[in-house]
Amino acid sequence: MHADDVAIQMSTVTESTPAREAVRVLAAQDLPGLIVVDKRGRPSTVLAGTQVLRMALPTYCQDDPTLARVIDEAAADVIFDGIGERTVADLLPRNRPDLPAVSADATLLEVAAVMARSNVPLVAVVDKDRVMTGAITLDGLLDRMLGT
Amino acid sequence: MHADDVAIQMSTVTESTPAREAVRVLAAQDLPGLIVVDKRGRPSTVLAGTQVLRMALPTYCQDDPTLARVIDEAAADVIFDGIGERTVADLLPRNRPDLPAVSADATLLEVAAVMARSNVPLVAVVDKDRVMTGAITLDGLLDRMLGT
Repeated sequence: MHADDVAIQMSTVTESTPAREAVRVLAAQDLPGLIVVDKRGRPSTVLAGTQVLRMALPTYCQDDPTLARVIDEAAADVIFDGIGERTVADLLPRNRPDLPAVSADATLLEVAAVMARSNVPLVAVVDKDRVMTGAITLDGLLDRMLGT
Repeated sequence: MHADDVAIQMSTVTESTPAREAVRVLAAQDLPGLIVVDKRGRPSTVLAGTQVLRMALPTYCQDDPTLARVIDEAAADVIFDGIGERTVADLLPRNRPDLPAVSADATLLEVAAVMARSNVPLVAVVDKDRVMTGAITLDGLLDRMLGT
């Protein structure tokens, strides 16, 4: 069994995607993060959901979450207001995590080794031009490896 | 809407749970990590799936994942052999990530603020004795907040 047998299709974003749209894409997928690709569809990094929250929520809430209780506004409004007109590029942390990539013929063990080196439970599958053809989640990988 | 409206039940492990069993629990749940609780059921930390792979796979594979291709053994066997007789405590990284916790009556925005502060897309819901009653995933939180 190889990488392309385990890979799933997932929506991606580019650095110029409005961050509001990225949040909706993230919420619509049951995935640990959003894969950011360049104009040619080559994966560059991953935007973690927790990072999105960090950028969207007022600092005083994060410093003292109990203060969030007094905000008399729908949570979604607070988040979308906090994001404003920013793009995905604006939301990425200064030290962007590398998104590991494998070729379609990588073995499952190779995928596991690549994932082990990163802290990201996502690996992109790329073709010979490094264009993304799919993605493998830790969960999907374990399911296949352990037959659960 | 409050934390207990969004919380789900998830299997937990303790530090003395055999790591092999923990891997099976992790694989059986579609979740970003395993919550580790103490004997009284109070959450202490979270074991990330990538950390499990890091502890289980031979070092030479992680240093050069292409070497994993030459291993002529089922991926599951390599992982379970690599884990051996270790326990969850043996798999946890030296700097254990704090698992954030909220009370059942926390607002969604409060949960989001707590999650934003950590890098972990999981928050435990605890009762007044700090015993875990459920958990909230980033995905579940976004679904409820944004109505997706």
